[in-house]
This record gives sequence, structure tokens and C-alpha cells, in this order.
Amino acid sequence: MDKSVDVVVVGAGIAGLVAARDLVRDGSEVLVLEARDRVGGRLLNDRLPGGDPIEVGGQWVGPGQREIHALLAELGIGTHPTYAAGRHIAEIGTARSEYTGRIPRVSPLVLADVAQAQWRLDRLARRVAAAEPWRAERAEALDGQTFATWLHRAARTGHGRAFFRVVTEAVFSAEPEELSALWAAYYIGAAGGLDALIDTTGGAQQDRILGGSQTIALTMAAELGDRVVPGAAVTEVGWDESGVRVRAGGRFVRARRAVLAVPPPLAARIRFDPGLPGDREKLVRRMPMGRVIKVNVVYDEPFWRAAGRSGQANSDRRPLGTVFDNTPPAGAPGVLVGFLEGRHADLGARLDPADRRARVLGDLTGYFGPRARDPLAYIEKDWAAEEFSGGCYGAFTPPGVLTRFGPALRAPVGPLHWAGAETAVRWTGYMDGAAESGHRAAREITTAFARGGARAANGG
Amino acid sequence: MDKSVDVVVVGAGIAGLVAARDLVRDGSEVLVLEARDRVGGRLLNDRLPGGDPIEVGGQWVGPGQREIHALLAELGIGTHPTYAAGRHIAEIGTARSEYTGRIPRVSPLVLADVAQAQWRLDRLARRVAAAEPWRAERAEALDGQTFATWLHRAARTGHGRAFFRVVTEAVFSAEPEELSALWAAYYIGAAGGLDALIDTTGGAQQDRILGGSQTIALTMAAELGDRVVPGAAVTEVGWDESGVRVRAGGRFVRARRAVLAVPPPLAARIRFDPGLPGDREKLVRRMPMGRVIKVNVVYDEPFWRAAGRSGQANSDRRPLGTVFDNTPPAGAPGVLVGFLEGRHADLGARLDPADRRARVLGDLTGYFGPRARDPLAYIEKDWAAEEFSGGCYGAFTPPGVLTRFGPALRAPVGPLHWAGAETAVRWTGYMDGAAESGHRAAREITTAFARGGARAANGG
Repeated sequence: MDKSVDVVVVGAGIAGLVAARDLVRDGSEVLVLEARDRVGGRLLNDRLPGGDPIEVGGQWVGPGQREIHALLAELGIGTHPTYAAGRHIAEIGTARSEYTGRIPRVSPLVLADVAQAQWRLDRLARRVAAAEPWRAERAEALDGQTFATWLHRAARTGHGRAFFRVVTEAVFSAEPEELSALWAAYYIGAAGGLDALIDTTGGAQQDRILGGSQTIALTMAAELGDRVVPGAAVTEVGWDESGVRVRAGGRFVRARRAVLAVPPPLAARIRFDPGLPGDREKLVRRMPMGRVIKVNVVYDEPFWRAAGRSGQANSDRRPLGTVFDNTPPAGAPGVLVGFLEGRHADLGARLDPADRRARVLGDLTGYFGPRARDPLAYIEKDWAAEEFSGGCYGAFTPPGVLTRFGPALRAPVGPLHWAGAETAVRWTGYMDGAAESGHRAAREITTAFARGGARAANGG
Repeated sequence: MDKSVDVVVVGAGIAGLVAARDLVRDGSEVLVLEARDRVGGRLLNDRLPGGDPIEVGGQWVGPGQREIHALLAELGIGTHPTYAAGRHIAEIGTARSEYTGRIPRVSPLVLADVAQAQWRLDRLARRVAAAEPWRAERAEALDGQTFATWLHRAARTGHGRAFFRVVTEAVFSAEPEELSALWAAYYIGAAGGLDALIDTTGGAQQDRILGGSQTIALTMAAELGDRVVPGAAVTEVGWDESGVRVRAGGRFVRARRAVLAVPPPLAARIRFDPGLPGDREKLVRRMPMGRVIKVNVVYDEPFWRAAGRSGQANSDRRPLGTVFDNTPPAGAPGVLVGFLEGRHADLGARLDPADRRARVLGDLTGYFGPRARDPLAYIEKDWAAEEFSGGCYGAFTPPGVLTRFGPALRAPVGPLHWAGAETAVRWTGYMDGAAESGHRAAREITTAFARGGARAANGG
């Protein structure tokens, strides 16, 4: 396969596939190179006993996510609500609370502390414009500290601080100590506030995708047909102002432009010749991925529902800090989905599989009682161990990086354009952001081609 | 070249060459694969007009660096003192001080602030044992904040804080905002304190290498002969308990063991099959390199000496924040060596070469007067743009990394052993640390071979 096309797209996740579709529609010849033998990137369906699809990767969409909803509508893919009726479980410190609505029953002191810190965080997030967070007021000072340092001042009670650690792990799959405070504010602001990120009803966990989220990628890939080439891991990209020459194994693709639709740390593993401008290299070598081990645990029925529980649980003292009901829309089998995030994923990855399973089931039993101990099936996925994701949910910047090298996140370099959830300005890190970034990269190229065409028509 | 040896070494810097020599002495068949067409890694000689060697990479050695002095003695390579007679220049805030000895003449308030903060820093550094910094008292809290956050509390005056920024840039070629406070303490402790790092006489800049520092690597490589293979960039390492299969271009080398003697971020670009344990991958993907543009500026004579100046200058308001006399031992031509470090290297790299040169010469003129404006030669090197270094002086950990993944820095993985200045427990990041790490990696392998042999002899 030594081919020549208008645009080569590297990566067949949502971002790359959206970009490819837009470009094909605009009349470009496109080839999508995908390292794995499947499409979808951080979206991946597995099967439940009985055959229903179940997601082992990203899965939820929420209100306000315009781009992904537009794409779902266009592809004819439906959604259904995440089950959220009944009592949620919250373990903050030594107390356990079962509650309905949004607010766990914990001490008024802790509630006030959390409310005030969240108010400060949301106010900060609104001030950090997602398109150019490095221009925010006090950007340098915010980027010079960890989110842990910021939170330690904003929340004053031990339990309040513990709450924000759980939230950080759930949203970033990283610890507050690792993140730049500016990155945290930017990311929260890009979603419209902390509640939008952490809520089920009304937030980012509100709805599920019928057929499983990977269907989005599978549908687009089917439409693109043999323009999508699996098993083509790109290791080198030669480029100059006239075009690119992309190497995947022993094969080469030439194109006028390229869309690199892979997470920043994977872009850092590709050899560019000539080397990229310093800021771009420095940025991607400084953006690690969060890490998460996602576990779907399957029971004959959603027994927690009969007990008046929603299946949603959070804890600051269990490794499996976040749990949701993930039962298929038909109501059986019963599925609980839980997450080992950040440090818990690191520690979990060091265990042998039987130990890890025992601890996860122990946590589920702690939340939901002894029926949780004996599942029909146990389906887990460690995303940090996936060579061509390198982690989940997404990449982030440690302190001192966003202000210095942030502008290189999206800026095209000659014929090279950057896509992927991390490059979005709304819902950064989400499917919605991935779709936004694909459209934007395609638009950059279409505009460049139109300009080039106009120049040529004008006698170039 | 499809070869089979006992040990393959990846990287022909000091660490790799030292390891190779030790292993050859112990009777192993060794091959050293070097990506570049030269040896020396971050050590590189260039030539002055007239032909004397001049270093564009690492160059100094100091007292207490036992490993590198032992190596120099063994190789028959001499040293000569860095010129340090006369008045040094220090610009802290708006004041300029010309001083002899160690203490610039600045306000007593600032001096007291700096002295107290340095006392706290050195005390902290002593508490962080270099072999296992993640076990230090309060390691989590220290690793959860940037060095900037720590310094902001330790130093209380604006000028005191500015001093520590200049020191951080000079020592780490990174900004305090980027470094974990624990990493900073660990690194300073590994050298025996801040003075050891920043002093010329009595410290890490005390002595220079006769013939230029790359001579160390060139001498070892000459001794190893055709065991050193240049132009062999390793992209893949297959491994299992029985050995390794290393790919460089279209060529393969099989060996019983491998020493990976490249900086962590370059190790992160190699594809390991099977993938490395999670902690190792997470670590190296989270260790960026400092960045520095080193400039040697050549004049017909060291005119600053006649004016009673040492040629040493520091400033918290000039990009070229650190300057030394780098004149050859014969006394001519006169050479000033200056460093654009951290943010100054980032900004400098965005300029076109003529602009950058003009600014560097402007700073030298500000320090030393109008004779600095018209040099005979201007020799610069941007280490961040070197594909097979990825930066200088060395790699570091942002917050939250050392406590979580630090133990993976040196721990062998099956037949894979790690060397390089970053893996040393004394003088981490220095030539001395590189030598230490090479000896240690060789020892690990020799021990493993001896054990294997003993097992075989016992009937295995």
C-alpha cells in the first residue's frame, strides 16, 4: 500500500472519523490509518452474557453536548437515560449516607465547606476561557501550582478535601497532586461547571448510547468503507510545506495534508521529519494520560433497584470510588459499572487479576450488600495498558505547561493538523470535544484547500 | 547486522560506555547501539577559531564527584580550574553588584531571606534520601506541590524569590513551577546541598576537562572499538525472561540482557514488546527534560579579566541568566559561555537565529560592556532540538510522579536494566551520576550472570 490521497488521517476515534467524513463530503480523497485492528479509540464495546453490548470505554453523553448530539442524530443513533432512581450511596470519611437528589446527608460543616469551595472553583473556571486558558487572569500563578495546592486552600475541612479528591479522580482519572490548577479550571470551565461534569441527571452521565458508544465509530467507519485502514500504526511522518509522507510499518501514504487525531502522548511517540517546532514537542512530551481500570460486574438482575437504590455510589475510602447502574435498557441482566481511577488504578494494576477482582467485589459488597459478591460475569479493562491509548479518560497538563506550551495544542504546523478530545474548546476530553475537534480540523484543511485553489485559479 | 551478544547497550553516553567497559572486562560480549553518528550523548565538543576544543554540552566536574574523577584518572584525562578570579556580577532586581567571594552585595534583608530559605532547603534535601526519595518524611505532601509553591513560602522577599528562580533555572534548566518540590529536594540532596550545585570553586562548576568533556566518551569508545555501532537508533525492544531482541532500523541484535542508557523520555519512545509494567511506562512518560540553549561567544582575548572581572555573571532580569569564563587554559581566545535556561530557552527557540544572537550579545554587553558586542565567533546549541537528547541538562518529575512511580526508575524489568544520569543516587543528572549508573547497571548484569552460571553448575 503506497498510496497518494488529499488527506491522511491518523487515528480512527471519533475525532479522526468525523474529520474524515467532513473532508470526504467536501470532495477530498481521504485515508484513515488506525493502529489497532478496530476503530473507536477510547470507545470499545464488549458483550454481556446474553449478547447485549456493554461499554468498557467511554460511554455517557449529557445535556449541552451539542456536537455529539448532532452527530448521534445524523447517524441515527439513539440514547437512553442512565438509571438514577432511588437512593445513592455516599461514603465521606467514616459516615455513610444514602440519599436522593444531589446532596448527600453529611455534616452541615462539610456541606458548607464543599459548597463554598465549589463556588470558588466554578467562579475560577468561568474566568478561564477555554479557547485560550493561558491568557486568563492570574494564569501564571494558577499554572504554577498543583490542583492539590489550590484545593487545600479552597476547602478547609478534611472531609471537604476528601470529597474533592474523589471528584478529581472521577473527572480526571488523576490525582489533584498531578494536575495544574489552571488545567483543572480550564477543563471544568470547558464543560460549563463542576456540576455538569459530575451529575448524572442534568450532567455528563445523564444518557447512554443505544447499541453501545463504539457504535458511533463503527457507523462512521462503515460509511467510510475501505478508506479506513486498520492495523496501520504510524511511526514516522515526513513533511514539508507541500505535503506529508506517512509511514505505517513498511507502507507509505502521501497526502497534501494530515490530521493527527491521536492523544498528545501518542503523538509524542511519532517521529516527525523534520522535527516539530520546539513548543509542540515540549507540549506533547509533557501531557500524560489519566488512568482508569473500568469494571462491569454482571448479576442476574439489578437487585439494588428492588432495595430502593439507584446503583450510584461514591466513596473516599474505597478504591472503587465511583459506581453506576449500567444495566441494559431491557432491565436485565443487572450491571454495576465501577472505576478504579488515578492512584487506585495504579495500585490496582500492580495486583494479580484474582486479587483485583476480589477487592472490587469487596467494595461492591460494602456498598450494596452480600448479593454483590457473586456476579455472573466480571468484565474489566485497564486503559493505561492499552498501547494505542496510553490511558484514559484523557491527557492533562502538569503545572507550568499550559501557560508555556498550550498555544501549540491546536495550532497547525505546515500541513499537519491536530484533532482529538484534548484539543477541543468545549467539553475538552469528552466525546463531544472529540467531535468538535474533528470538525475543526476538517474545516482548517478545507479552508486551506479553497485558498490554495483560489491562488491557483488566480494564476499561481 | 543481525548479531547475537551477551549484552546490548542502548546509548553511547557516559552511562552506556561505562557499563559496556565494565561488562567487557567481566568477559561479556557487548554491543553498544548509538542513534547518532557520534558518541557522548549530552557531551559534545566543537572547535574554537584556532582549533581548540570547546564544549557545547555538559562540561564541568567538581569536588565530591568520586565516580567521574575515578573515571578521568583511569582514562588519563586531566582537568583545569574554571577561571574564577576577580569580581563576579550579580543583578538581583534593579541592583547590580560586583563582588568577590560567594556573597553578592545586596540588601541585608534579601541576604537574610535567601540565607534562611537556603537553610530550609538544604535541611529538607538532607532528609530526602536519594536512593528512595519516595520514603522521605512528608514525601506525599512535598511531591503534591510545585517547587514554586514551596519556594514561595520559604522565601519572603521578591528579590529572594527571584534569586531562587535564577538558581532553579541554572540547576534544573526548568522553572520552579514545573518541578515537584520533592524532586528538587532529592536532586539537591543527591549533590550534597545547594552550594555544591551552584558554586564554582568548591562546587559543580569548579573544574573543566582538558581536551573537552566529550573526550571522556571518545576515549572509552575508542577502547571499545567496533563494539560501538553509530547510526543505530533503537525503535523496538522485544524481551522475555530469556533475553532481548533489539531493533535498530532494519537490523536486529539479540542478547541475554540489555542496558537502556538513554534519558527517560527517550526510553518512552521505544516500543517494548511485551509492554513494560505500568509503573515504568507511566514514569517515563511523565519525565520531561529541561531545556537549555548554550552559547559560547569568542573574543580575541578575555577582556573582562583585565577589567578585574571573573567573567561570571548572574541576573534575574536577563534571559542569559548565567555566564562563566570559558577561555581555554592557554588564555586565548577569550570565551564567555552563557545559558538560556528553562523559559528563556523556550522563548529563545522561537526567535530567528539573528535575533537570538543579537539578544545574547545585548545581555553580554549589559554585563561586560561594549567590547562584548562584537565577537569573533558565536557558537550555540539548542539541546531541546536534539532528537536523541530531547533536552538538557536532564529529566525531572513534575508533581505527583516521584512518590507514585519513582521506584520504577532503576528497578530492572526481566532482562532490561536502566542506566543514565537520571537513575543515579549521587549527583543525579551529572556526569558523575551517569558514571555511577553505568557501573551499577553492569554490576546488576554481572551478578545475574554469575547467579545463572551457579544455577547451571548446580545442575540446572
